[in-house]
Formats: sequence, structure tokens, C-alpha cells
Amino acid sequence: MFAFRLTSSGRSPVAPRTGVITTARGEIRTPAFMPVGTLATVKSLLPEEVASTRAEVLLVNAYHLYLRPGHHIVASMGGVHRFMDWPGPVLSDSGGFQVFSLARLGKVDEDGVRFRSHIDGSEHFYTPELAMEVQAALGVDIAMPLDHVLAGQAEIREARDAAERTLRWYERCRQAAGPLPVFAIVQGGIHHGLRRWHARACVELDPPGYSIGGLSVGEAKADTWPTVEAVTAELPVDRPRYLMGVGSPEDLVEAVARGVDMFDCVLPSRLGRNGSMFTGDGRANVRNARYRQDPGPVDPECDCLACSRFSMAYIHHLFRNEELLGYRLATIHNIRYLVRLTERMRAAIEAGQFSAFAAEYLGRYRPSSEAVRSEQKAKWLAQSGFEAQAGGQD
Amino acid sequence: MFAFRLTSSGRSPVAPRTGVITTARGEIRTPAFMPVGTLATVKSLLPEEVASTRAEVLLVNAYHLYLRPGHHIVASMGGVHRFMDWPGPVLSDSGGFQVFSLARLGKVDEDGVRFRSHIDGSEHFYTPELAMEVQAALGVDIAMPLDHVLAGQAEIREARDAAERTLRWYERCRQAAGPLPVFAIVQGGIHHGLRRWHARACVELDPPGYSIGGLSVGEAKADTWPTVEAVTAELPVDRPRYLMGVGSPEDLVEAVARGVDMFDCVLPSRLGRNGSMFTGDGRANVRNARYRQDPGPVDPECDCLACSRFSMAYIHHLFRNEELLGYRLATIHNIRYLVRLTERMRAAIEAGQFSAFAAEYLGRYRPSSEAVRSEQKAKWLAQSGFEAQAGGQD
Repeated sequence: MFAFRLTSSGRSPVAPRTGVITTARGEIRTPAFMPVGTLATVKSLLPEEVASTRAEVLLVNAYHLYLRPGHHIVASMGGVHRFMDWPGPVLSDSGGFQVFSLARLGKVDEDGVRFRSHIDGSEHFYTPELAMEVQAALGVDIAMPLDHVLAGQAEIREARDAAERTLRWYERCRQAAGPLPVFAIVQGGIHHGLRRWHARACVELDPPGYSIGGLSVGEAKADTWPTVEAVTAELPVDRPRYLMGVGSPEDLVEAVARGVDMFDCVLPSRLGRNGSMFTGDGRANVRNARYRQDPGPVDPECDCLACSRFSMAYIHHLFRNEELLGYRLATIHNIRYLVRLTERMRAAIEAGQFSAFAAEYLGRYRPSSEAVRSEQKAKWLAQSGFEAQAGGQD
Repeated sequence: MFAFRLTSSGRSPVAPRTGVITTARGEIRTPAFMPVGTLATVKSLLPEEVASTRAEVLLVNAYHLYLRPGHHIVASMGGVHRFMDWPGPVLSDSGGFQVFSLARLGKVDEDGVRFRSHIDGSEHFYTPELAMEVQAALGVDIAMPLDHVLAGQAEIREARDAAERTLRWYERCRQAAGPLPVFAIVQGGIHHGLRRWHARACVELDPPGYSIGGLSVGEAKADTWPTVEAVTAELPVDRPRYLMGVGSPEDLVEAVARGVDMFDCVLPSRLGRNGSMFTGDGRANVRNARYRQDPGPVDPECDCLACSRFSMAYIHHLFRNEELLGYRLATIHNIRYLVRLTERMRAAIEAGQFSAFAAEYLGRYRPSSEAVRSEQKAKWLAQSGFEAQAGGQD
């Protein structure tokens, strides 16, 4: 079961909008932020803590769960919802990105892609059909197709070949998926012409929703937003749009402004484990000595478990002593911050005041240096000769 | 406010008994197991998770909190209960053991002990009065006095000097403590005569409760229990007895059999972080490949959060991938296991069936190799030239 209805919408396909996705396991109000639970656990949190952030859907990764513990084991445990005790909707990433970057080898032909596990070097052949088999075995509510992923710096001809193959693979995925809803993934790097063509070709396939892949992989922000706009302009208004691996608070606002509905990102948990916590003014690093005696909450505007019960001084103390509870509190706060941001955007859109909200929000929020993400990207580049995308590799 | 009443008791001071300690922050039913929250956090857990194990009191460490964040900061945050958001009773260890072992220098005179912080090497002078000031600033419900702690292998003359100093320091502690209840600590190594003499001398001081220090520091088990018996035989029945730094499931049963009421130990959280989980038959290591597809709970008799909601297969998966949630679930289970063991012992004592319970329990529970504790002890010995005690150094 999958349905999407707009609850408020602008005139253009590029305008901000609100909607509701209905799945058998519950509704997802959009714009929505999806916490990342790569290995069937949102790092350090129990499902009820994820629910306490009012996230309505979470993301797991088919590549990772295929390798460990294996989709057959998850299926024999009653599926991923029962396995991790999360009763709400789950969206899975197909693992396309991981197969081409995190794994080794990544040798592609029309049938699929041969890769070696990043864990033990074992060889596997991943096909569109297998990607669907894995996701069906997990029992997720929304699936992603296997796509042919290229490095961001790919030549346009190569990018076009991969984008065409992605269309052919989508047909095979849908064939194999049965009733499982499978989004189409729009590729094309930062080549606007290619993006537009691929978006239109995806629309021909009439999928239940659209993912925008291949962004937030290290390209300049000046390239990101025109590319997103080039895509959303081609998409029908009555289907959800999911910008994969995004994002930071400021990215969410920029993307919603251009008609995007869904997001996932490891940033809140990765930053959280590092002591970096979102506030209305930007990120605060709770390890900083200035918080040693601070009796106030991290963010006075926040209603999360950490902000409503603990002082900055306590969270600072936990981080200074490398106490695991510190990571938990920071992660809960950061996820709640992004979910609350989507709530605020929904309210602004419904009140017809999104532009004012976005201007005020972006005027106040100071984006931090991208140190954490850049470091991660550098590591990935070194590992895989590939530019990294945050989504699904937490 | 501090009171203790026996709710059932044998004829002798060495017999198992049940009781209730009343503090301003709630009642503690004994025998009681106290989870260790050295740094004002039970490692990885939120207070409500500690409460879900039905632990009724937890332990914090004055030495650690004196050094970091500093007792003045905890006081300015409203005390340790508010700081960590645990509304129930808290008992603090004075830090005597840490000052003499974990810290460097450890130069003692009649006034107190000069030591260097194990964190930054800064020099401090810890006195009975300061130990009480720290614990009063934390705002705990039950305090421990500063005692002069010696290595287990100390000569009897040296041990007697230290035990005598501990008595003089106790008087100074009580003087400084105001209304805060301060237990007396019975020392004396495994010298039964010295232990009996020191216990009687402590009884003269009429403290609200008695701690038994200097055991579970690497002595042979064959020495532990006769020593405990030598002490409890001298103590009045109407005051609680706390065996510091103990213990394992089998140790709890052995000690309760000899009239001990209270326990603390880092074992449940330390083992939990290692994947070792208590069951009725002994410890199970959830990392073991045999649990990879096990749909059952860790311990079918357990009612903890982990056992009631997650399969062995899921917890195995978490540990195999070093997911923090695994540590949390194992810690919750292990603490609940020990608390449930105290509940079962209370029921058995009240039904007049403790001997049968103990025989059945000890007949079934296979104590594991002491690998984890031995390793820890070896590290401590190397660090401090001291035999290690588990309590309060998690």
C-alpha cells in the first residue's frame, strides 16, 4: 500500500509543498526527515527514542543488511520491523551507491554488478532482481531500485550510458518488486540537460515517487540547487520527491524551497557522536569549555529529551569523559532538530509564509565549516576513488 | 533522613535477612544491588532505563566527581540527582579506594592523603573533612567515610595501623557530615582477628550502617566468605551491611547467605559492553556465532527490556557490528539480572526457603572463567602496584 496526497501546493512543480504519504505501517507527513538506521539500528538509539523525535519513517540499507546479517536471517526473524522493533514505516536504500563505492571491484555489465564485500572481500553479483529480493525480504515499505552510480566527475557520455542503464534496470526492478513501491532514481550529475532528460524518461515509467541521486557528493553548493530545480521542474506535482543523502539544516530549507519532500542524512548522528549539536544559530560544540558550568539546555527552543531534562554542563561532562550517554543525547537532539525543522516548514508552507520563514531561518542559522563532512569525504575518496555521499553509510 | 528496619531475620547475625532502608528520596528493599554510576551516569543508560531494572539506589564516586566536573559544579547544577536526572536514592563512595590506588602518590599522614590526579597529574590533599564536603555538595543520600586503604597483601601490623586510622578518620567524617548518614567501613584484609576487632571497634561508633571494604580485591574465594562471616558475626542485626565492590551472581548469593544486605559492582556493565550476558546457567557471550540465527531471548526467564523485545540474533548482529545499542541492551539485561536475583532472594528469605534457593541456584549457575576481571586486575596491578577492587572504577 502506497499513496501520496498533497495537502498544500504552489502553482509550480518547483514550489514548496506539504503532503502525506500513506503506507500500511502509518502516514508520513512531508516534508519529512528520515533518520538513518543503516544496519537496522539508528546508531545508539532505541526505536522509542527515534519515535520521541517524531520522525515518522526511517531508512535502512539493503547492501549492508544483505552482507550482515543477511536478508534471509532478517526475514526469518519476521522482517526488519520486528528485528529492530520499529513498528513504523521503513524506506530502504537499494545499496546501489554502496555497491559502486564502498564495495570493491564494482564491475558492471547489463546484467548487474560484480563486487567484493567491504567486510571480508567475498565476491557477490548484485542485480536489479537481487536488490528487490533483498528489500522484499527485509519487508520494507518503500524500496529503491538498483541504479548505475558514477563518480561525480564522470564525462557526460559515460553519465548518459549509466543513466540509460538505470532506466532499463528500473523496469527489471519493478517487475521483480511485486506490490512493493519502488521509486525511480533520477541521475545525471550536474549536467542540467542530462538531468532534465533523465527526469522526463523516469516520468514515462510512472513510478510512485522520485529520488534525486548523485547530489551532496562533494559538488559545489552553487551547482546543487540549480540541478535540483532542473529535476523538480520536470516531475509531476502529485508524486513525492526524495533528495538522497541530504542534509544539513540549511540544505533542507533550500531543497524544500525547490519542491523536495523527503530527506535522509547521517549528519545528525555523526555530528552528535562528535559533540556537535544544532541550534537556531548554527552548531554548538558541547565539548567547548565554555559550557562547563552552563545550567541551560543546548537549545532553549528545543523540546527534545536532552534539552528538556539535561543541562549543557551535564552533556559537556558526559562528552569530556567519553560517556556513551553523551552521544545518545546529542543524537536525539540533532534528529529532533531536523524533524522539528520539517514541522516548522510544513506549518510555514500551510500558512503561505514559507519564503519569509526561509529568509529568517537562513538569515540566522550560520552553517558551520564543513570540516566533519569533508574529512569523511576525504576518507571515502581515499578508500574508493569515489566522491562520497553521506546517505546510508553512517 | 535514614532508617533501616528488618522485615525478616534469622536468629543469628550471620543469617540471611530482608529489610527496608528509608531515605528522603525513597525506600531501598534489601538485599539490594546498586548499579554503578561512577561519573553520575550508569554507563550508556538513561535514568529511566536504570529504573526499568527496578534498581532502587545507585552509586556514584566522590573521587571521580571531585576531579571532574568538580563537586562545586555539580552542586551549582542542583546536586547529583538533578544533574543526572535520577530522583531516587544515591549512595556515594568516598573515593578512599581511588585515592590510594587509581591516583598517584597516595602519601598518607594523620591529616589526610596527598595524591596526584590520574587525569592530569594535579596535586590534591584529600582529608576526611573534604571527602564529606564533596559528598554533601553532591547531595547524596548515603555517604562513605574516607578510609585508609592498603594493598591486600599488607602485613598485619601495617593493616592494624591503617584500621586504627580509619576509626579516627570516621569520627572526623561524622563530625563534618552534619545530618548526612555515614556508614563505617570495616577493614582488616583477610586477617580474621583483625577483622573481628575492627568490626567491634566500628560497632562502638554506632554508625547507621556498615561497609565491608578490602574484599573482592583478588583474594581467593576460600578466604572471602570466612572473612565476611567473621565480620557480620560481630555486627548488630538492626543495621544494614554493604559488601563493597561485590559482585557476581554467585557472590551475591554467598554473601546474602552470610547476612549481607547491599552490593555494588561494575561487572554487569563491564561484561555487558563485552557481550557477556548473565543467564540462569551462567554467562552467555552474545558474540558467539551460535546466536546468529537465534530467534529467542537471551534469557527466557528474564523480563528486561532486551529479553522482552529483542532476539539473540538481533543483539548478536549489533555486537558484530559494534553498534552502541548492543552495549545498552546487554547492560540493561545484566543489571536487571542482578536486581531480579535480589528480588528472588528476598522472596526466598521471606518464605523461609533461602537455603533451598541458594543450593538450587548455585547448583545450576556455572561461574565463568574470571577472564574479564583478571585482565582488569592485571591492568590495575601494573598501574598502581595495588590489587584492584571492581567497585566504583567502571
